[in-house]
Amino acid sequence: MSSMPTIGDIYRARPHVYRHLRPPPLHQYSGLNDLVQAEIYLKHENHQPVGAFKVRGGLNLVAGLSQDQKRGGLFTASTGNHGQSIAFAARAHNIKATIAVPVGANPGKVAAMQGLGAEVLFHGNDFDTARQWIAEVAKEKSGTFVGPTDAPLIHGVGTYGLEIIEDLPDVEVIIVPVGAGSGVCGTAIVAKTINPGIRVIGVQSAQAPTMQQSWQQGRPVEGPMTTVAEGLATRISFANTQAIMARYLDDFVLVEDSALEEAVRLLLTHSHNLVEEAGAASLAAALQIKEQLQDKKVVLVVSGGNLSPERLSQIIR
Amino acid sequence: MSSMPTIGDIYRARPHVYRHLRPPPLHQYSGLNDLVQAEIYLKHENHQPVGAFKVRGGLNLVAGLSQDQKRGGLFTASTGNHGQSIAFAARAHNIKATIAVPVGANPGKVAAMQGLGAEVLFHGNDFDTARQWIAEVAKEKSGTFVGPTDAPLIHGVGTYGLEIIEDLPDVEVIIVPVGAGSGVCGTAIVAKTINPGIRVIGVQSAQAPTMQQSWQQGRPVEGPMTTVAEGLATRISFANTQAIMARYLDDFVLVEDSALEEAVRLLLTHSHNLVEEAGAASLAAALQIKEQLQDKKVVLVVSGGNLSPERLSQIIR
Repeated sequence: MSSMPTIGDIYRARPHVYRHLRPPPLHQYSGLNDLVQAEIYLKHENHQPVGAFKVRGGLNLVAGLSQDQKRGGLFTASTGNHGQSIAFAARAHNIKATIAVPVGANPGKVAAMQGLGAEVLFHGNDFDTARQWIAEVAKEKSGTFVGPTDAPLIHGVGTYGLEIIEDLPDVEVIIVPVGAGSGVCGTAIVAKTINPGIRVIGVQSAQAPTMQQSWQQGRPVEGPMTTVAEGLATRISFANTQAIMARYLDDFVLVEDSALEEAVRLLLTHSHNLVEEAGAASLAAALQIKEQLQDKKVVLVVSGGNLSPERLSQIIR
Repeated sequence: MSSMPTIGDIYRARPHVYRHLRPPPLHQYSGLNDLVQAEIYLKHENHQPVGAFKVRGGLNLVAGLSQDQKRGGLFTASTGNHGQSIAFAARAHNIKATIAVPVGANPGKVAAMQGLGAEVLFHGNDFDTARQWIAEVAKEKSGTFVGPTDAPLIHGVGTYGLEIIEDLPDVEVIIVPVGAGSGVCGTAIVAKTINPGIRVIGVQSAQAPTMQQSWQQGRPVEGPMTTVAEGLATRISFANTQAIMARYLDDFVLVEDSALEEAVRLLLTHSHNLVEEAGAASLAAALQIKEQLQDKKVVLVVSGGNLSPERLSQIIR
């Protein structure tokens, strides 16, 4: 097993990330302060190219490839933001990305990956089938397979953690949505190394509690997964991110899907940002645990904004 | 009459603006490229604090006040983004802002101004009445009245024009929504000074054509104003911005309100950004004149994102 990432890895990722994007802002909205009765700051990862924090990880991963690996291209599986991130980073470095998606994947996200120049291959009926298959394809073609929690991805996404501390050195609590865990791990490594007094809290949907239960029980748990939030829809546990979370995470809460939808509406109203369900999970968690947050300086990571028009219509109806 | 602003004024505004905000990104979305059949970039002024480009102008104006003026406070009239901008800048410099709004003003925007610490006073039934009144109040109280096209505002908002050129030196066309004209004037001064070959095109609603008709006829025209787009809802012409537009603007198009609403929907679908009607005007114009834009590098200024939940529901229904 590889050693645990450190803040040094994250500092080293910065030039690779900032070559292609600017730090998105940390904004306050008085309506959200009033709702939570705290000093609430949104870290706007939904303002990134491809609309999600994951692009930072993709850029760092691609920058670290050898010339041979670049020639062989990248292979990964995704139904959403991860695939767009890899496609964006591959295009930025002029290398080829091949992304496996399950049959019936969201046509909007497929079009976005193709629009970024990636080849999209349909295979199998779920993400895991597509992922196992594309890993074999990568091997046959001497390409590089990218898994969802590969270390360079954690190093890259951790750069937003540094930005939070730099923008708000007095931050007291950071709440981060958890899918496979790269975002919360990068954030927790940064926050706890710089100031162990900062509380880092993960949030997942109660309709996809696998990562939360694995963290709580200290062993890999598989569970039901019926959430509407694609970005939180983890069916299995990931060993490397669980190891980091076991060491650094202060708390890990579950919120109902209905609370995610309410948080999407609240973010539209008070911040005028379109946020996907996963990205709204941090606000949903803050509202759920608001008695712990009173008058504190709280950063909510808005991890992504890729809500489809169909879902938007359902949510605001 | 004061002399016309120059690019030097805009360079001088930068440190005042960047003390409080970061340049928002210039993003491409393949779906928009396909729609217009051009290389389309969105300048995301909707990502600013207070959700609109005007905050740049407010910050520059406040930074230039004397100690006496700061003590006297700022007085202005607004029904929307201008008032939030002045409130934000005043708070950043710890001075008082008093904003007159017409009776019946949008409660969400009033709450946002108050949330930024401004005192909001209701007076009269329309913007012009409120504005004339608050100018008198400012005089009585030895405060500083801020008009919508004051020179420091133009200098401040022009900073986004510089960012566009720095991010995309080969830009060929820039399309800018026009209300009172500060944004398009700042942009045009920058673009035409650096490269007269860049086409700068303004856009207003056909349901509020005053500024466009005044530009076209070369004399101040007043006209009907029934647009749904608050940010384009100009009923009168402004002499200082008209003088700049007469010198620098290449074209000025009108789009129907229905096209603004369609552009809001397209931006939600293809960029996952919530954009207000005025902010979507640049895309509406690009679609209207797409035969002139084929394969060109085109920047659409997305001037603001403050769409209310009620309007969003109406537009996507």
